[in-house]
Amino acid sequence: MKHVYVIGIGAGDPEQLTLQAVRALGRAEVFFLLDKGEDKAGLVRLREEILERHAPRPHRIVVATDPDRDRDAATGAYAPAVDDWRRRRGDIYQRLIAEELADDGCGAFLVWGDPALYDSTLAILEDVHARGGTDFDWTVVPGISSVATLAARHRTGLNQVGRPVQITTGRRLADAGGLPQGVDDVVVMLDARQAFGALTGQGLHIYWGAYLGTPDEILLAGPLDDALADRIRATRAEARARKGWIMDTYLLRRTQPPAPRGPADTAGGPR
Amino acid sequence: MKHVYVIGIGAGDPEQLTLQAVRALGRAEVFFLLDKGEDKAGLVRLREEILERHAPRPHRIVVATDPDRDRDAATGAYAPAVDDWRRRRGDIYQRLIAEELADDGCGAFLVWGDPALYDSTLAILEDVHARGGTDFDWTVVPGISSVATLAARHRTGLNQVGRPVQITTGRRLADAGGLPQGVDDVVVMLDARQAFGALTGQGLHIYWGAYLGTPDEILLAGPLDDALADRIRATRAEARARKGWIMDTYLLRRTQPPAPRGPADTAGGPR
Ligand SMILES: C[S@@+](CC[C@H](N)C(=O)[O-])C[C@H]1O[C@@H](n2cnc3c(N)ncnc32)[C@H](O)[C@@H]1O
Ligand SMILES: C[S@@+](CC[C@H](N)C(=O)[O-])C[C@H]1O[C@@H](n2cnc3c(N)ncnc32)[C@H](O)[C@@H]1O
Repeated sequence: MKHVYVIGIGAGDPEQLTLQAVRALGRAEVFFLLDKGEDKAGLVRLREEILERHAPRPHRIVVATDPDRDRDAATGAYAPAVDDWRRRRGDIYQRLIAEELADDGCGAFLVWGDPALYDSTLAILEDVHARGGTDFDWTVVPGISSVATLAARHRTGLNQVGRPVQITTGRRLADAGGLPQGVDDVVVMLDARQAFGALTGQGLHIYWGAYLGTPDEILLAGPLDDALADRIRATRAEARARKGWIMDTYLLRRTQPPAPRGPADTAGGPR
Repeated sequence: MKHVYVIGIGAGDPEQLTLQAVRALGRAEVFFLLDKGEDKAGLVRLREEILERHAPRPHRIVVATDPDRDRDAATGAYAPAVDDWRRRRGDIYQRLIAEELADDGCGAFLVWGDPALYDSTLAILEDVHARGGTDFDWTVVPGISSVATLAARHRTGLNQVGRPVQITTGRRLADAGGLPQGVDDVVVMLDARQAFGALTGQGLHIYWGAYLGTPDEILLAGPLDDALADRIRATRAEARARKGWIMDTYLLRRTQPPAPRGPADTAGGPR
Protein backbone atom coordinates (compact mmCIF):
# COMPACT_ATOMS: atom_id res chain seq x y z
CA MET A 1 0.00 0.00 0.00
CA LYS A 2 1.07 3.61 -0.49
CA HIS A 3 2.42 5.18 2.66
CA VAL A 4 2.60 8.83 3.57
CA TYR A 5 4.64 10.30 6.43
CA VAL A 6 3.61 13.59 7.96
CA ILE A 7 6.84 14.74 9.56
CA GLY A 8 7.14 17.55 12.09
CA ILE A 9 10.46 19.23 11.31
CA GLY A 10 10.72 21.64 14.25
CA ALA A 11 10.24 25.37 14.35
CA GLY A 12 13.34 26.68 12.63
CA ASP A 13 16.42 24.77 13.80
CA PRO A 14 17.26 21.72 11.67
CA GLU A 15 18.76 20.13 14.81
CA GLN A 16 15.24 19.95 16.26
CA LEU A 17 14.54 16.97 14.01
CA THR A 18 13.98 13.81 16.02
CA LEU A 19 15.76 10.54 15.28
CA GLN A 20 12.33 9.22 14.32
CA ALA A 21 11.91 12.04 11.80
CA VAL A 22 15.35 11.37 10.35
CA ARG A 23 14.41 7.73 9.93
CA ALA A 24 11.12 8.64 8.22
CA LEU A 25 12.91 11.06 5.89
CA GLY A 26 15.20 8.21 4.96
CA ARG A 27 12.27 6.03 3.94
CA ALA A 28 10.51 8.47 1.65
CA GLU A 29 11.11 8.51 -2.07
CA VAL A 30 8.96 11.52 -2.80
CA PHE A 31 8.67 14.75 -0.84
CA PHE A 32 5.56 16.83 -1.30
CA LEU A 33 6.05 20.54 -0.86
CA LEU A 34 3.10 22.88 -0.76
CA ASP A 35 4.16 26.24 -2.04
CA LYS A 36 2.37 28.60 0.32
CA GLY A 37 4.37 31.59 -0.76
CA GLU A 38 6.58 31.03 2.23
CA ASP A 39 9.82 31.57 0.35
CA LYS A 40 9.97 34.84 2.14
CA ALA A 41 9.68 33.13 5.49
CA GLY A 42 12.81 31.07 5.14
CA LEU A 43 10.71 27.96 5.60
CA VAL A 44 11.70 26.74 2.21
CA ARG A 45 15.35 27.10 3.18
CA LEU A 46 14.87 25.00 6.31
CA ARG A 47 13.14 22.30 4.31
CA GLU A 48 15.89 22.34 1.72
CA GLU A 49 18.58 22.09 4.37
CA ILE A 50 16.79 19.15 5.95
CA LEU A 51 16.35 17.31 2.64
CA GLU A 52 19.94 18.05 1.74
CA ARG A 53 21.17 16.42 4.94
CA HIS A 54 18.68 13.63 5.54
CA ALA A 55 16.80 12.64 2.39
CA PRO A 56 17.98 9.53 0.56
CA ARG A 57 19.72 9.86 -2.80
CA PRO A 58 18.11 10.05 -5.24
CA HIS A 59 14.82 11.53 -4.13
CA ARG A 60 12.05 13.34 -5.91
CA ILE A 61 10.44 16.63 -4.84
CA VAL A 62 6.96 17.47 -6.05
CA VAL A 63 5.87 21.05 -5.56
CA ALA A 64 2.17 21.90 -5.61
CA THR A 65 0.63 25.32 -5.27
CA ASP A 66 -1.48 25.99 -2.21
CA PRO A 67 -5.09 26.78 -3.17
CA ASP A 68 -5.01 29.83 -0.90
CA ARG A 69 -2.54 31.55 -3.13
CA ASP A 70 -4.30 30.51 -6.24
CA ARG A 71 -7.53 31.92 -5.05
CA ASP A 72 -6.01 35.09 -3.65
CA ALA A 73 -4.33 35.69 -6.95
CA ALA A 74 -7.41 34.93 -8.99
CA THR A 75 -10.12 36.66 -7.04
CA GLY A 76 -8.39 38.87 -4.52
CA ALA A 77 -10.54 37.24 -1.85
CA TYR A 78 -8.80 37.08 1.48
CA ALA A 79 -10.41 34.36 3.56
CA PRO A 80 -11.99 31.57 1.53
CA ALA A 81 -14.60 29.55 3.42
CA VAL A 82 -12.91 26.80 5.37
CA ASP A 83 -14.89 23.99 3.76
CA ASP A 84 -14.24 25.18 0.26
CA TRP A 85 -10.58 25.65 0.94
CA ARG A 86 -10.28 22.24 2.51
CA ARG A 87 -11.95 20.57 -0.41
CA ARG A 88 -9.66 22.29 -2.87
CA ARG A 89 -6.64 21.40 -0.85
CA GLY A 90 -7.89 17.82 -0.53
CA ASP A 91 -8.08 17.66 -4.32
CA ILE A 92 -4.42 18.56 -4.53
CA TYR A 93 -3.33 16.04 -1.87
CA GLN A 94 -5.42 13.35 -3.50
CA ARG A 95 -3.78 13.98 -6.84
CA LEU A 96 -0.29 13.97 -5.31
CA ILE A 97 -0.89 10.63 -3.61
CA ALA A 98 -2.71 9.08 -6.56
CA GLU A 99 -0.35 10.21 -9.31
CA GLU A 100 3.04 10.81 -7.75
CA LEU A 101 3.35 7.72 -5.54
CA ALA A 102 3.97 4.19 -6.80
CA ASP A 103 1.57 1.52 -5.51
CA ASP A 104 3.93 0.53 -2.73
CA GLY A 105 5.64 3.94 -2.68
CA CYS A 106 6.45 6.08 0.31
CA GLY A 107 6.01 9.85 0.38
CA ALA A 108 6.35 12.58 2.98
CA PHE A 109 4.88 15.93 3.86
CA LEU A 110 7.28 18.10 5.89
CA VAL A 111 5.34 20.17 8.41
CA TRP A 112 6.62 23.19 10.30
CA GLY A 113 6.89 22.63 14.07
CA ASP A 114 4.49 19.98 15.30
CA PRO A 115 1.79 18.84 12.84
CA ALA A 116 -0.77 18.93 15.70
CA LEU A 117 -0.67 22.71 16.18
CA TYR A 118 -2.40 25.10 13.80
CA ASP A 119 -1.65 23.06 10.72
CA SER A 120 -4.18 21.56 8.33
CA THR A 121 -2.21 18.65 6.85
CA LEU A 122 -3.72 15.98 9.14
CA ALA A 123 -7.30 17.10 8.68
CA ILE A 124 -6.88 17.17 4.93
CA LEU A 125 -5.32 13.71 4.74
CA GLU A 126 -8.21 12.39 6.82
CA ASP A 127 -10.68 14.01 4.42
CA VAL A 128 -8.93 12.53 1.41
CA HIS A 129 -8.85 9.10 3.00
CA ALA A 130 -12.55 9.33 3.91
CA ARG A 131 -13.46 10.18 0.32
CA GLY A 132 -12.28 6.69 -0.62
CA GLY A 133 -10.78 5.77 -3.96
CA THR A 134 -7.20 6.54 -2.94
CA ASP A 135 -5.73 3.63 -1.05
CA PHE A 136 -3.04 4.82 1.34
CA ASP A 137 -2.04 4.73 4.98
CA TRP A 138 -0.26 7.47 6.89
CA THR A 139 1.95 7.95 9.94
CA VAL A 140 2.49 11.13 11.91
CA VAL A 141 5.90 11.97 13.37
CA PRO A 142 5.52 14.60 16.10
CA GLY A 143 7.83 17.60 16.00
CA ILE A 144 9.16 20.29 18.32
CA SER A 145 6.60 23.10 18.10
CA SER A 146 7.30 26.82 18.25
CA VAL A 147 5.53 26.69 21.63
CA ALA A 148 8.04 24.20 23.07
CA THR A 149 10.86 26.22 21.52
CA LEU A 150 9.59 29.47 23.03
CA ALA A 151 9.49 27.94 26.50
CA ALA A 152 12.91 26.33 26.14
CA ARG A 153 14.60 29.50 24.91
CA HIS A 154 13.11 31.48 27.81
CA ARG A 155 13.98 28.57 30.11
CA THR A 156 10.52 28.59 31.61
CA GLY A 157 7.66 26.13 31.94
CA LEU A 158 4.38 26.62 30.10
CA ASN A 159 2.24 26.06 33.18
CA GLN A 160 2.37 26.82 36.87
CA VAL A 161 2.17 23.94 39.36
CA GLY A 162 -1.03 21.95 38.74
CA ARG A 163 -2.49 24.74 36.61
CA PRO A 164 -3.62 24.80 32.97
CA VAL A 165 -2.06 26.45 29.94
CA GLN A 166 -4.06 27.53 26.93
CA ILE A 167 -2.73 27.87 23.40
CA THR A 168 -4.71 30.31 21.32
CA THR A 169 -4.58 32.82 18.47
CA GLY A 170 -3.99 36.57 18.48
CA ARG A 171 -7.50 37.10 17.18
CA ARG A 172 -9.10 35.20 20.06
CA LEU A 173 -6.97 36.95 22.64
CA ALA A 174 -7.94 40.30 21.17
CA ASP A 175 -11.62 39.38 21.18
CA ALA A 176 -11.43 38.22 24.80
CA GLY A 177 -9.57 41.33 25.92
CA GLY A 178 -7.67 39.41 28.58
CA LEU A 179 -6.66 35.99 29.85
CA PRO A 180 -9.47 33.41 29.87
CA GLN A 181 -11.09 32.74 33.23
CA GLY A 182 -9.16 30.33 35.40
CA VAL A 183 -6.12 30.35 33.11
CA ASP A 184 -2.89 32.04 34.12
CA ASP A 185 -0.71 30.96 31.21
CA VAL A 186 -1.65 31.61 27.61
CA VAL A 187 0.48 31.02 24.54
CA VAL A 188 -0.47 33.20 21.59
CA MET A 189 0.23 32.24 17.99
CA LEU A 190 -0.76 33.67 14.63
CA ASP A 191 -0.89 37.17 16.07
CA ALA A 192 -0.45 39.71 13.31
CA ARG A 193 -2.26 42.36 15.35
CA GLN A 194 -0.03 42.22 18.43
CA ALA A 195 -2.90 41.66 20.79
CA PHE A 196 -0.57 41.84 23.81
CA GLY A 197 -0.58 45.63 23.38
CA ALA A 198 -4.09 45.86 24.82
CA LEU A 199 -3.18 43.85 27.93
CA THR A 200 -0.65 46.08 29.65
CA GLY A 201 -1.23 47.02 33.28
CA GLN A 202 -2.98 43.73 34.11
CA GLY A 203 -0.12 42.32 36.14
CA LEU A 204 0.97 39.99 33.33
CA HIS A 205 4.44 38.84 32.41
CA ILE A 206 5.29 38.30 28.73
CA TYR A 207 7.83 35.94 27.17
CA TRP A 208 8.10 36.90 23.51
CA GLY A 209 10.11 35.23 20.76
CA ALA A 210 10.56 35.75 17.03
CA TYR A 211 12.33 33.56 14.44
CA LEU A 212 12.71 31.00 17.22
CA GLY A 213 15.34 28.38 16.61
CA THR A 214 16.94 30.32 13.75
CA PRO A 215 20.09 32.45 13.73
CA ASP A 216 17.82 35.53 13.70
CA GLU A 217 16.05 34.58 16.93
CA ILE A 218 14.95 37.49 19.14
CA LEU A 219 13.79 37.06 22.74
CA LEU A 220 12.22 39.68 24.99
CA ALA A 221 10.61 39.13 28.38
CA GLY A 222 9.44 41.01 31.45
CA PRO A 223 6.42 42.51 33.17
CA LEU A 224 4.01 43.58 30.44
CA ASP A 225 3.85 47.34 30.86
CA ASP A 226 3.55 50.01 28.16
CA ALA A 227 7.31 50.36 27.88
CA LEU A 228 7.84 46.67 27.15
CA ALA A 229 4.85 46.52 24.79
CA ASP A 230 6.35 49.45 22.87
CA ARG A 231 9.73 47.80 22.80
CA ILE A 232 8.33 44.55 21.42
CA ARG A 233 6.31 46.43 18.80
CA ALA A 234 9.35 48.43 17.72
CA THR A 235 11.62 45.37 17.66
CA ARG A 236 9.02 43.47 15.68
CA ALA A 237 8.50 46.25 13.16
CA GLU A 238 12.22 46.76 12.67
CA ALA A 239 12.94 43.04 12.21
CA ARG A 240 10.02 42.62 9.88
CA ALA A 241 11.09 45.55 7.74
CA ARG A 242 14.66 44.25 7.60
CA LYS A 243 13.81 40.63 6.72
CA GLY A 244 10.52 41.13 4.89
CA TRP A 245 8.60 38.71 7.14
CA ILE A 246 8.25 37.73 10.77
CA MET A 247 7.11 34.74 12.76
CA ASP A 248 6.58 35.35 16.44
CA THR A 249 4.78 33.85 19.39
CA TYR A 250 4.54 34.62 23.09
CA LEU A 251 3.52 33.37 26.49
CA LEU A 252 1.46 35.61 28.78
CA ARG A 253 1.64 34.66 32.46
CA ARG A 254 -0.33 35.89 35.40
CA THR A 255 1.74 35.13 38.48
CA GLN A 256 -0.31 33.97 41.39
CA PRO A 257 -0.15 36.10 44.48
CA PRO A 258 2.16 34.14 46.79
CA ALA A 259 0.39 31.90 49.27
CA PRO A 260 0.46 33.10 52.89
CA ARG A 261 3.64 31.80 54.46
CA GLY A 262 5.68 31.81 57.65
CA PRO A 263 8.60 34.21 58.13
CA ALA A 264 11.17 31.42 57.62
CA ASP A 265 9.89 30.69 54.14
CA THR A 266 11.83 32.63 51.52
CA ALA A 267 11.21 30.50 48.47
CA GLY A 268 9.61 32.10 45.38
CA GLY A 269 5.92 31.90 44.51
CA PRO A 270 4.52 28.76 42.94
CA ARG A 271 5.49 28.20 39.34
CA MET B 1 31.64 28.36 34.07
CA LYS B 2 29.65 25.28 34.98
CA HIS B 3 27.00 24.40 32.46
CA VAL B 4 23.84 22.41 32.95
CA TYR B 5 21.66 21.02 30.16
CA VAL B 6 18.02 20.30 30.82
CA ILE B 7 17.21 17.81 28.10
CA GLY B 8 13.72 16.78 27.06
CA ILE B 9 14.00 13.10 26.15
CA GLY B 10 10.54 12.46 24.73
CA ALA B 11 7.60 10.62 26.20
CA GLY B 12 8.68 7.01 25.97
CA ASP B 13 10.32 6.30 22.62
CA PRO B 14 14.11 6.79 22.57
CA GLU B 15 13.79 7.72 18.88
CA GLN B 16 11.93 10.87 19.95
CA LEU B 17 15.25 12.41 20.95
CA THR B 18 16.14 15.38 18.79
CA LEU B 19 19.53 15.79 17.12
CA GLN B 20 20.01 18.75 19.46
CA ALA B 21 19.38 16.52 22.46
CA VAL B 22 21.82 13.92 21.17
CA ARG B 23 24.43 16.62 20.81
CA ALA B 24 23.81 17.90 24.34
CA LEU B 25 24.02 14.37 25.73
CA GLY B 26 27.39 14.08 24.04
CA ARG B 27 28.69 17.17 25.80
CA ALA B 28 27.76 16.21 29.35
CA GLU B 29 30.21 14.50 31.66
CA VAL B 30 27.80 14.01 34.51
CA PHE B 31 24.17 12.96 34.38
CA PHE B 32 21.97 13.81 37.33
CA LEU B 33 19.17 11.39 37.98
CA LEU B 34 16.48 12.15 40.52
CA ASP B 35 15.17 8.94 41.91
CA LYS B 36 11.46 9.63 42.13
CA GLY B 37 10.58 6.02 42.71
CA GLU B 38 9.81 5.73 39.03
CA ASP B 39 11.60 2.45 38.54
CA LYS B 40 8.19 0.92 38.29
CA ALA B 41 7.25 3.31 35.53
CA GLY B 42 9.92 2.20 33.11
CA LEU B 43 11.24 5.74 33.03
CA VAL B 44 14.53 4.60 34.43
CA ARG B 45 14.80 2.07 31.64
CA LEU B 46 14.26 4.75 28.97
CA ARG B 47 16.92 6.94 30.55
CA GLU B 48 19.34 4.04 30.71
CA GLU B 49 18.71 3.14 27.09
CA ILE B 50 19.33 6.73 26.06
CA LEU B 51 22.55 7.03 28.06
CA GLU B 52 23.69 3.67 26.75
CA ARG B 53 23.29 4.84 23.16
CA HIS B 54 24.16 8.52 23.32
CA ALA B 55 26.24 9.41 26.38
CA PRO B 56 29.99 9.79 25.90
CA ARG B 57 32.35 7.18 27.34
CA PRO B 58 33.22 7.42 30.13
CA HIS B 59 30.44 9.31 31.87
CA ARG B 60 29.35 9.62 35.44
CA ILE B 61 25.80 9.19 36.79
CA VAL B 62 24.87 10.79 40.08
CA VAL B 63 21.63 9.61 41.60
CA ALA B 64 19.90 11.76 44.21
CA THR B 65 16.73 10.95 46.06
CA ASP B 66 13.71 13.10 45.40
CA PRO B 67 12.60 14.90 48.59
CA ASP B 68 9.03 13.77 48.00
CA ARG B 69 9.97 10.19 48.60
CA ASP B 70 12.14 11.04 51.53
CA ARG B 71 9.37 12.89 53.17
CA ASP B 72 6.71 10.31 52.36
CA ALA B 73 8.87 7.64 53.84
CA ALA B 74 9.78 9.66 56.90
CA THR B 75 6.48 11.22 57.84
CA GLY B 76 3.84 9.51 55.81
CA ALA B 77 2.68 12.96 54.70
CA TYR B 78 1.24 12.92 51.21
CA ALA B 79 1.38 16.42 49.75
CA PRO B 80 4.14 18.61 51.14
CA ALA B 81 3.59 22.34 50.67
CA VAL B 82 4.87 23.42 47.28
CA ASP B 83 7.25 26.03 48.67
CA ASP B 84 8.79 23.67 51.19
CA TRP B 85 9.18 20.96 48.61
CA ARG B 86 10.76 23.32 46.14
CA ARG B 87 13.25 24.55 48.69
CA ARG B 88 14.24 21.04 49.62
CA ARG B 89 14.58 20.06 46.02
CA GLY B 90 16.58 23.21 45.35
CA ASP B 91 18.98 22.18 48.10
CA ILE B 92 19.61 18.92 46.32
CA TYR B 93 20.12 20.53 42.91
CA GLN B 94 22.42 23.12 44.43
CA ARG B 95 24.54 20.41 46.04
CA LEU B 96 24.68 18.42 42.79
CA ILE B 97 25.88 21.42 40.81
CA ALA B 98 28.26 22.67 43.51
CA GLU B 99 29.86 19.35 44.39
CA GLU B 100 29.52 17.06 41.42
CA LEU B 101 30.48 19.43 38.60
CA ALA B 102 34.02 20.66 37.92
CA ASP B 103 34.40 24.45 37.54
CA ASP B 104 34.15 24.27 33.78
CA GLY B 105 32.19 21.02 33.89
CA CYS B 106 29.05 20.14 31.99
CA GLY B 107 26.15 18.21 33.48
CA ALA B 108 22.67 17.23 32.36
CA PHE B 109 19.23 16.58 33.75
CA LEU B 110 17.17 14.24 31.59
CA VAL B 111 13.52 15.27 31.68
CA TRP B 112 10.56 13.17 30.57
CA GLY B 113 8.73 14.59 27.53
CA ASP B 114 9.15 18.33 27.22
CA PRO B 115 10.65 20.14 30.24
CA ALA B 116 8.04 22.91 29.80
CA LEU B 117 5.03 20.74 30.68
CA TYR B 118 4.22 19.75 34.25
CA ASP B 119 7.81 19.39 35.30
CA SER B 120 9.59 21.30 38.05
CA THR B 121 13.21 21.13 36.90
CA LEU B 122 13.28 24.59 35.28
CA ALA B 123 11.63 26.37 38.20
CA ILE B 124 14.03 24.75 40.64
CA LEU B 125 17.13 25.63 38.64
CA GLU B 126 15.90 29.22 38.48
CA ASP B 127 15.44 29.21 42.25
CA VAL B 128 18.92 27.82 42.82
CA HIS B 129 20.45 30.35 40.48
CA ALA B 130 18.56 33.19 42.16
CA ARG B 131 19.85 32.14 45.57
CA GLY B 132 23.33 33.06 44.36
CA GLY B 133 26.51 31.38 45.50
CA THR B 134 26.45 28.68 42.81
CA ASP B 135 27.85 30.00 39.58
CA PHE B 136 26.36 28.16 36.63
CA ASP B 137 24.52 28.69 33.40
CA TRP B 138 21.93 26.41 31.86
CA THR B 139 20.37 25.56 28.52
CA VAL B 140 17.04 23.93 27.85
CA VAL B 141 16.60 21.46 25.01
CA PRO B 142 12.89 21.08 24.18
CA GLY B 143 11.49 17.57 23.86
CA ILE B 144 8.53 15.79 22.31
CA SER B 145 5.82 15.88 24.98
CA SER B 146 3.27 13.20 25.73
CA VAL B 147 0.73 15.71 24.34
CA ALA B 148 2.42 15.86 20.95
CA THR B 149 2.79 12.08 21.01
CA LEU B 150 -0.89 11.58 21.80
CA ALA B 151 -1.95 13.74 18.87
CA ALA B 152 0.52 12.10 16.49
CA ARG B 153 -0.51 8.56 17.41
CA HIS B 154 -4.18 9.45 16.92
CA ARG B 155 -3.21 11.33 13.75
CA THR B 156 -5.24 14.34 14.82
CA GLY B 157 -4.54 17.99 15.50
CA LEU B 158 -4.79 19.46 18.99
CA ASN B 159 -6.93 22.38 17.92
CA GLN B 160 -9.71 23.10 15.45
CA VAL B 161 -9.21 25.81 12.83
CA GLY B 162 -8.37 29.10 14.54
CA ARG B 163 -9.56 27.77 17.91
CA PRO B 164 -7.73 27.32 21.22
CA VAL B 165 -6.57 24.18 23.00
CA GLN B 166 -6.14 23.96 26.75
CA ILE B 167 -3.80 21.58 28.55
CA THR B 168 -4.92 20.86 32.08
CA THR B 169 -4.95 18.28 34.87
CA GLY B 170 -7.49 15.63 35.79
CA ARG B 171 -8.17 17.42 39.05
CA ARG B 172 -9.06 20.70 37.32
CA LEU B 173 -11.23 19.00 34.77
CA ALA B 174 -13.09 17.17 37.55
CA ASP B 175 -13.55 20.41 39.49
CA ALA B 176 -14.87 22.20 36.40
CA GLY B 177 -17.25 19.37 35.51
CA GLY B 178 -16.90 20.05 31.79
CA LEU B 179 -14.88 21.78 29.13
CA PRO B 180 -13.88 25.38 29.95
CA GLN B 181 -15.95 28.07 28.32
CA GLY B 182 -14.93 28.87 24.77
CA VAL B 183 -12.61 25.89 24.56
CA ASP B 184 -13.45 22.86 22.43
CA ASP B 185 -10.21 20.93 22.79
CA VAL B 186 -8.76 19.99 26.15
CA VAL B 187 -5.78 17.76 26.83
CA VAL B 188 -5.86 16.15 30.26
CA MET B 189 -2.73 15.01 32.07
CA LEU B 190 -2.01 13.71 35.55
CA ASP B 191 -5.47 12.20 35.80
CA ALA B 192 -5.49 9.43 38.37
CA ARG B 193 -9.23 9.86 38.90
CA GLN B 194 -10.31 9.36 35.30
CA ALA B 195 -12.25 12.58 35.18
CA PHE B 196 -13.51 11.81 31.67
CA GLY B 197 -15.99 9.40 33.26
CA ALA B 198 -18.15 12.29 34.46
CA LEU B 199 -18.31 13.90 31.01
CA THR B 200 -20.21 11.31 28.99
CA GLY B 201 -23.28 12.40 27.08
CA GLN B 202 -21.98 15.92 26.43
CA GLY B 203 -21.28 15.36 22.76
CA LEU B 204 -17.54 15.02 23.31
CA HIS B 205 -15.05 12.89 21.45
CA ILE B 206 -12.14 11.34 23.37
CA TYR B 207 -8.67 10.38 22.13
CA TRP B 208 -7.04 8.37 24.90
CA GLY B 209 -3.50 6.98 25.06
CA ALA B 210 -1.47 5.07 27.62
CA TYR B 211 2.27 4.22 27.63
CA LEU B 212 2.54 6.41 24.54
CA GLY B 213 5.65 5.87 22.48
CA THR B 214 6.48 2.59 24.21
CA PRO B 215 5.92 -0.98 23.00
CA ASP B 216 3.00 -1.18 25.47
CA GLU B 217 1.16 1.75 23.92
CA ILE B 218 -2.65 1.55 24.02
CA LEU B 219 -4.92 3.87 22.01
CA LEU B 220 -8.68 4.21 22.26
CA ALA B 221 -10.87 6.86 20.63
CA GLY B 222 -14.47 7.63 19.82
CA PRO B 223 -17.58 9.50 20.94
CA LEU B 224 -17.41 9.70 24.73
CA ASP B 225 -20.45 7.70 25.80
CA ASP B 226 -20.82 5.41 28.81
CA ALA B 227 -19.73 2.36 26.82
CA LEU B 228 -16.44 3.95 25.77
CA ALA B 229 -15.81 5.40 29.24
CA ASP B 230 -16.31 1.91 30.68
CA ARG B 231 -14.02 0.44 28.09
CA ILE B 232 -11.23 2.92 28.84
CA ARG B 233 -11.63 2.36 32.57
CA ALA B 234 -11.47 -1.41 32.16
CA THR B 235 -8.50 -1.24 29.78
CA ARG B 236 -6.71 1.10 32.13
CA ALA B 237 -7.36 -1.05 35.20
CA GLU B 238 -6.27 -4.21 33.43
CA ALA B 239 -3.06 -2.66 32.06
CA ARG B 240 -2.23 -1.09 35.36
CA ALA B 241 -2.72 -4.35 37.22
CA ARG B 242 -0.58 -6.19 34.70
CA LYS B 243 2.31 -3.69 34.62
CA GLY B 244 2.05 -2.24 38.12
CA TRP B 245 1.84 1.38 36.86
CA ILE B 246 0.21 3.42 34.16
CA MET B 247 0.82 6.72 32.42
CA ASP B 248 -2.06 8.00 30.33
CA THR B 249 -3.34 11.21 28.83
CA TYR B 250 -6.23 12.16 26.59
CA LEU B 251 -7.74 14.82 24.38
CA LEU B 252 -11.40 15.76 24.77
CA ARG B 253 -12.92 17.42 21.72
CA ARG B 254 -16.23 19.12 21.24
CA THR B 255 -16.94 19.11 17.54
CA GLN B 256 -18.54 22.25 16.28
CA PRO B 257 -21.92 21.85 14.66
CA PRO B 258 -21.19 22.08 10.94
CA ALA B 259 -21.70 25.49 9.39
CA PRO B 260 -24.78 25.82 7.17
CA ARG B 261 -23.83 24.74 3.69
CA GLY B 262 -25.21 24.22 0.23
CA PRO B 263 -26.32 20.77 -1.02
CA ALA B 264 -23.19 20.37 -3.17
CA ASP B 265 -20.89 20.70 -0.19
CA THR B 266 -20.02 17.31 1.24
CA ALA B 267 -16.81 18.15 3.07
CA GLY B 268 -16.55 17.30 6.79
CA GLY B 269 -17.03 19.81 9.60
CA PRO B 270 -14.28 22.25 10.44
CA ARG B 271 -11.31 20.74 12.21
C1 LIG C 1 0.40 28.14 11.10
S1 LIG C 1 1.13 28.17 12.72
C2 LIG C 1 2.08 26.70 12.66
C3 LIG C 1 2.61 26.27 13.98
C4 LIG C 1 3.51 25.07 13.91
N1 LIG C 1 2.77 23.87 13.49
C5 LIG C 1 4.21 24.83 15.24
O1 LIG C 1 4.09 23.72 15.80
O2 LIG C 1 4.92 25.72 15.70
C6 LIG C 1 2.28 29.49 12.54
C7 LIG C 1 2.50 30.26 13.82
O3 LIG C 1 3.41 29.54 14.64
C8 LIG C 1 4.27 30.44 15.32
N2 LIG C 1 5.66 30.12 14.92
C9 LIG C 1 6.03 29.10 14.13
N3 LIG C 1 7.35 29.07 14.01
C10 LIG C 1 7.85 30.07 14.75
C11 LIG C 1 9.16 30.53 15.04
N4 LIG C 1 10.24 29.94 14.53
N5 LIG C 1 9.30 31.60 15.87
C12 LIG C 1 8.22 32.19 16.41
N6 LIG C 1 6.97 31.80 16.15
C13 LIG C 1 6.77 30.75 15.34
C14 LIG C 1 3.84 31.85 14.95
O4 LIG C 1 2.96 32.31 15.95
C15 LIG C 1 3.13 31.61 13.65
O5 LIG C 1 2.13 32.60 13.46
C1 LIG D 1 4.51 15.01 35.47
S1 LIG D 1 3.73 15.02 33.92
C2 LIG D 1 5.15 15.17 32.87
C3 LIG D 1 4.80 15.51 31.45
C4 LIG D 1 6.03 15.54 30.54
N1 LIG D 1 6.91 16.65 30.87
C5 LIG D 1 5.60 15.62 29.08
O1 LIG D 1 6.03 16.56 28.38
O2 LIG D 1 4.89 14.74 28.63
C6 LIG D 1 3.25 13.33 33.78
C7 LIG D 1 1.97 13.13 32.97
O3 LIG D 1 2.27 13.17 31.60
C8 LIG D 1 1.47 12.24 30.89
N2 LIG D 1 2.39 11.30 30.22
C9 LIG D 1 3.73 11.36 30.23
N3 LIG D 1 4.25 10.38 29.48
C10 LIG D 1 3.22 9.68 28.98
C11 LIG D 1 3.12 8.55 28.12
N4 LIG D 1 4.21 7.95 27.63
N5 LIG D 1 1.88 8.10 27.81
C12 LIG D 1 0.78 8.70 28.30
N6 LIG D 1 0.83 9.76 29.11
C13 LIG D 1 2.02 10.25 29.44
C14 LIG D 1 0.55 11.58 31.89
O4 LIG D 1 -0.67 12.28 31.88
C15 LIG D 1 1.27 11.80 33.19
O5 LIG D 1 0.38 11.87 34.26
